Amino acid sequence: MINIAILGFGVVGSGTCDVLSNNAEIIKKRIGDEIYVKKILDLRDFPDSPYKDRVTHDADEVFGDPDIKVAVETIGGARVAYDYTKRALSAGISVVTSNKELVSTHGVELMKLACDNGCVYLFEAAVGGGIPIIRPLYKCLAANNIVKIAGIVNGTTNYILSSMKNSGISYEGALKKAQQKGYAEQDPTADCEGIDAQRKISILSSIVMDGKYCDPSKIHAEGISKLTTEDIALARAIGCELKLIAYFGNNGDGTASAFVAPHFVDKACMLSDVEGVFNAVLVEGDYLGQAVFYGRGAGSYPTASAVAGDVIEACVNGSVDMKTRLWDDSVSVFRDYDDIKSDFVVYSEDDDMDLSAVLPSAQAVENASGVNAVIVNDITEAELKSKLEGKSGIEYKHYLK
Amino acid sequence: MINIAILGFGVVGSGTCDVLSNNAEIIKKRIGDEIYVKKILDLRDFPDSPYKDRVTHDADEVFGDPDIKVAVETIGGARVAYDYTKRALSAGISVVTSNKELVSTHGVELMKLACDNGCVYLFEAAVGGGIPIIRPLYKCLAANNIVKIAGIVNGTTNYILSSMKNSGISYEGALKKAQQKGYAEQDPTADCEGIDAQRKISILSSIVMDGKYCDPSKIHAEGISKLTTEDIALARAIGCELKLIAYFGNNGDGTASAFVAPHFVDKACMLSDVEGVFNAVLVEGDYLGQAVFYGRGAGSYPTASAVAGDVIEACVNGSVDMKTRLWDDSVSVFRDYDDIKSDFVVYSEDDDMDLSAVLPSAQAVENASGVNAVIVNDITEAELKSKLEGKSGIEYKHYLK
Repeated sequence: MINIAILGFGVVGSGTCDVLSNNAEIIKKRIGDEIYVKKILDLRDFPDSPYKDRVTHDADEVFGDPDIKVAVETIGGARVAYDYTKRALSAGISVVTSNKELVSTHGVELMKLACDNGCVYLFEAAVGGGIPIIRPLYKCLAANNIVKIAGIVNGTTNYILSSMKNSGISYEGALKKAQQKGYAEQDPTADCEGIDAQRKISILSSIVMDGKYCDPSKIHAEGISKLTTEDIALARAIGCELKLIAYFGNNGDGTASAFVAPHFVDKACMLSDVEGVFNAVLVEGDYLGQAVFYGRGAGSYPTASAVAGDVIEACVNGSVDMKTRLWDDSVSVFRDYDDIKSDFVVYSEDDDMDLSAVLPSAQAVENASGVNAVIVNDITEAELKSKLEGKSGIEYKHYLK
Repeated sequence: MINIAILGFGVVGSGTCDVLSNNAEIIKKRIGDEIYVKKILDLRDFPDSPYKDRVTHDADEVFGDPDIKVAVETIGGARVAYDYTKRALSAGISVVTSNKELVSTHGVELMKLACDNGCVYLFEAAVGGGIPIIRPLYKCLAANNIVKIAGIVNGTTNYILSSMKNSGISYEGALKKAQQKGYAEQDPTADCEGIDAQRKISILSSIVMDGKYCDPSKIHAEGISKLTTEDIALARAIGCELKLIAYFGNNGDGTASAFVAPHFVDKACMLSDVEGVFNAVLVEGDYLGQAVFYGRGAGSYPTASAVAGDVIEACVNGSVDMKTRLWDDSVSVFRDYDDIKSDFVVYSEDDDMDLSAVLPSAQAVENASGVNAVIVNDITEAELKSKLEGKSGIEYKHYLK
């Protein structure tokens, strides 16, 4: 029997307990041993939970227990979770987490600590919820130079944009609906201003930049709170869908370009079809070409599915390849947003506005709706802004083909 | 330096050499060691290849070389490849392959042989080409009971169906075009009659049935050679696309239902959008929900990307979790096709034909094209056939929502 502990018995922590106990028989068959949740560390009591007898408020009971091999950190945030993760790893207890904030801010230190103590720090659930993406990047695509990643990695914002499209309601109305359904927090800032997506793309970037740490605070992030139903209708009129995209591009010179922003996503791109709380990550490798990973990016059980998969890995595999996963924060990786070239859709409600006179390199967007729009490739937002200076009634969005 | 050998220097074998040598620097950075192709075993000479000096015709030079840690088997088929794989594994040399025929017929024996000799037998490239699917099933989704898999796993047939749709040409014409482009073999039987897909779904089934071996010869397989452009047009008229689907369903009683057949795939299902040589696999887990893995399912470089990823794993990880991957052929797993319940679209060119009189449990398919069609759920093909006996002008296809 392998004993584990859950740190933080919230939505994901209790979901992980459910997966591990309801599928205990299958898991035992797969790994040849039983996984038992011995301790649950939380400030609260859970008198109605079937696991109530295992709840403790005393961290020493967990970190001082030599029987415990793996701890599931589902506390969230980067304060208590950070302290507990350090304590666990220092004691040689592997830690598995869904905590993107902690991984993206302290991943360098925590992975090194795991490696030094012969255990692992795994975080498949930190990006894309239940969708396998971290392990495929580390393992299956390990022979590729990853040149591009474009992801819908935040279910809350994708749900809001889908609602706005399907019900014709405003951002505020759609946010309220999302909050009522439990898809958005009462303070929606981290999701809606792109901060959650910023953390997730920083984690993916650090992996594919071979462990050069990609600080999330260096990633330009723009959210969806200023988007309107008109923006969505306009995107659709020219054969696109409006999506919040977390983007990573490998510049090939040791630097990367990453940002989070609303994009007009061409209908030819599979990301355009991703609706509601679903997530999808498009990855382009130099030998793989493009692949897409699609599924439920949040929610108790899908996230718990990924956490529990990592628990199994931590139980089976020990620290065998932790050293190939380490990150290093000695080098600055990201190009300044002002220097990042991107593609844009530029459009005007004024049919007489000659956009190709303003932007000579632009290509007109053929569309049956008669929308006056062009695509400009390979230009920084700063350059584009300067070209549009003084012209009124022209708007633009990032474009993803 | 880690020395490896390539067995069979064809499309995938030479592609693997290219990936490993062109991305040698990245790979070295990732694993902290260099991977070197020391020997290439092939009957032919390759005087124009940059690797020509490493080519040998003598198998003893490979299997008797104590320096060689990993062998890449890209010979194909289940004869020479089988002998060489056994020789390598018996010598403690890990084997990595894209050979679905060999894995699906002799996987039980070969994985056990690897385990017994402290090495690994890995086959990420055997299903879905470059798409990560084997490792995600074994690892990321290890805590789930996988209830369903539906995959477009054969690029040749998907290319042919896309060509028929987009160019309005017949099956024969589309096959010829595919052969000219190198997407179909001169003898297209294995692809077009569903045998390749049968092997691939057997491999996925064996994994998710926790290693109960799923013999491909027990899987009902129907190909695409009888499909017409009318079938495709009809599918589209009722909001579907015609696709060759490899299906697995877990019956929950220790048995599985698997088959390969053309399906009307509802436009709401992401598989309906998969065009040309691309592959996609939809996986449903009890906690994960649905996830889709999409990408290039064949071709030299995408397949080599997956092979090279496994080479890296074999170099880094040794045999640490091979024992959790073993298959066992002691139990018969598959339900007879005649007893498998499925969903069908039933349609008639005769508008006056009252399909709901013939099939009282059926639901009419609302469609703007006025096609006379119904959906029947949860019925065996044998039952459906008996209900339609004696009625003329009625056709049906499997239906995937």
